[in-house]
Amino acid sequence: MSQDQVPSYVEQGREFTRDTRYIDDRITRDARVPEQGPTEGVMWPVEPGRYRLIAAKACPWATRTLIVRQLLGLEDVISVGLPGPTHDARSWTFDLDEGGVDPVLGIHFLRDAYDARFPDYPRGVTVPAIVDTAGGPTQGAVVTNDFPWITHDLFFEWREHHRADAPDLWPADVRDEMEQVMQRIYTEVNNGVYRCGFAGSQEAYDAAYDRLFTALDWLEERLADRRFLMGETLTEADVRLWTTLARFDAVYHGHFKCNRNKLSEMPNLWGYARDLYQSFPAFRDNTDFDQIKAHYYRVHVDINPSGIVPKGPDLSGWDVPSERA
Amino acid sequence: MSQDQVPSYVEQGREFTRDTRYIDDRITRDARVPEQGPTEGVMWPVEPGRYRLIAAKACPWATRTLIVRQLLGLEDVISVGLPGPTHDARSWTFDLDEGGVDPVLGIHFLRDAYDARFPDYPRGVTVPAIVDTAGGPTQGAVVTNDFPWITHDLFFEWREHHRADAPDLWPADVRDEMEQVMQRIYTEVNNGVYRCGFAGSQEAYDAAYDRLFTALDWLEERLADRRFLMGETLTEADVRLWTTLARFDAVYHGHFKCNRNKLSEMPNLWGYARDLYQSFPAFRDNTDFDQIKAHYYRVHVDINPSGIVPKGPDLSGWDVPSERA
Repeated sequence: MSQDQVPSYVEQGREFTRDTRYIDDRITRDARVPEQGPTEGVMWPVEPGRYRLIAAKACPWATRTLIVRQLLGLEDVISVGLPGPTHDARSWTFDLDEGGVDPVLGIHFLRDAYDARFPDYPRGVTVPAIVDTAGGPTQGAVVTNDFPWITHDLFFEWREHHRADAPDLWPADVRDEMEQVMQRIYTEVNNGVYRCGFAGSQEAYDAAYDRLFTALDWLEERLADRRFLMGETLTEADVRLWTTLARFDAVYHGHFKCNRNKLSEMPNLWGYARDLYQSFPAFRDNTDFDQIKAHYYRVHVDINPSGIVPKGPDLSGWDVPSERA
Repeated sequence: MSQDQVPSYVEQGREFTRDTRYIDDRITRDARVPEQGPTEGVMWPVEPGRYRLIAAKACPWATRTLIVRQLLGLEDVISVGLPGPTHDARSWTFDLDEGGVDPVLGIHFLRDAYDARFPDYPRGVTVPAIVDTAGGPTQGAVVTNDFPWITHDLFFEWREHHRADAPDLWPADVRDEMEQVMQRIYTEVNNGVYRCGFAGSQEAYDAAYDRLFTALDWLEERLADRRFLMGETLTEADVRLWTTLARFDAVYHGHFKCNRNKLSEMPNLWGYARDLYQSFPAFRDNTDFDQIKAHYYRVHVDINPSGIVPKGPDLSGWDVPSERA
């Protein structure tokens, strides 16, 4: 690979800033215009069997959608395609599937589904992405990749297709506080680990590290006297925090230099993470530590030029009972 | 820095092998030929005040000599020069000293002392190095950099200059077993962490990781029922193990991917390391975690291209009483 083909993730000389321009279409009940969230894009109708969720288990943003889909019992309503853990600067690929091709979409490069929607799609080919499989003019085209609203809409717009005992992931009585908690988790934790890892200067890294651990200390304290982030029931906020916690010791601690301490050295957060992992199959089933490690250590060649994937950490601790349930 | 000036530490495609060709001169009592160790080089006479030990606190091999010198009370007999934590492909430098120059040797680049001994010295400019300051034709020239024999000879050849209550670092009654223990520590632990970090293939790394943690498990068990490696008294074997343990969580765990677990997750080894750190000023005084981190993370640009030094780990645990004394 010549020098100009090496993808660069580090923001040279400055702080990492995530590109958050997405295809902000939504899938809503009867294609209605919802009360909350972006309404600039196209509204697509909820239709069981029509859409395919493309979500790599390696990716924290994609894993949110896999967990929520399973928690809500939407497995028979929305199918899933799973790209492998690594990708190059161009695209995620279906390298885990037979022949390297997604059996429903018939493509190897996820980029093809983006280009089917917008020729020469100019922004990042990201997961999660929801693809239309209805067979019409938008067959095989990406409908949306606007991840925060995908899980929101799986809950609010697909309600009549949820399983009977699906959890109330967005309880109305704590909604305002939950939005604040999720906002802080997004900027300081979910994105905070990337701000550490992709910092382009010592100063940017140092500031990012302090921000991250300030937020983790806040969460450690918050979880001292409640089982879940919003109290005694599981919510969307827990799903959003989880994807970072699951990757913390395996990747972020070393690869992104988030190394004040391991997750396993913060008793409340560690017990909480194990509780989610042990109590809800949706969390365990969608967590693949091998794919997680392979993704970060192989894709970020500017941080880890050798591409070598660490054998550690010892993961046996995940099965030590949390005793928080 | 152009591409061909970037130092390379990783052994592309294969296992890391340390270059162990040193200047194997020795300093002995009356320049005698000792019974043990290499005798191919020149024998220099023990003379208080004549030699200057050049030893960076960042470097584990150099730190051995600083600790042994202090344990034996040789501070007034052998002076010390301390290069800063970083160096380029050519040389360690005296960048911590006023004007960037060692006050006794009057040089900035340690390489100058190597070249004074052998013009265009072709091998690595390493620390520890002992330099002659006698003023004769070998003034400012390196006498030896053969680190395993430097500490050996500080003990056996400089005995009449030790402080009165200096510890017996090489007790005769356990000498045979101690040599075996030190050999295993050298190949599997001291050098084992480098074998992980500088591995040039996934296979070489995986094998190195297994070797390292097999040895650490052996040491963890060995330290279950004895305070020090060889029993109830401190020996050279402890000094040799220490320099790797002190760097383990700060550097090797993340930077060299020695990440099955932290040192602090191995109770006997962690208590043992804290005991050394808390009970003997020679260990604490010669351990500078900031220099250690700066060295590895800044020098190995092929492993850490950004040169960013992690803020972690939290080091407060080093002062939690070990209760092994």
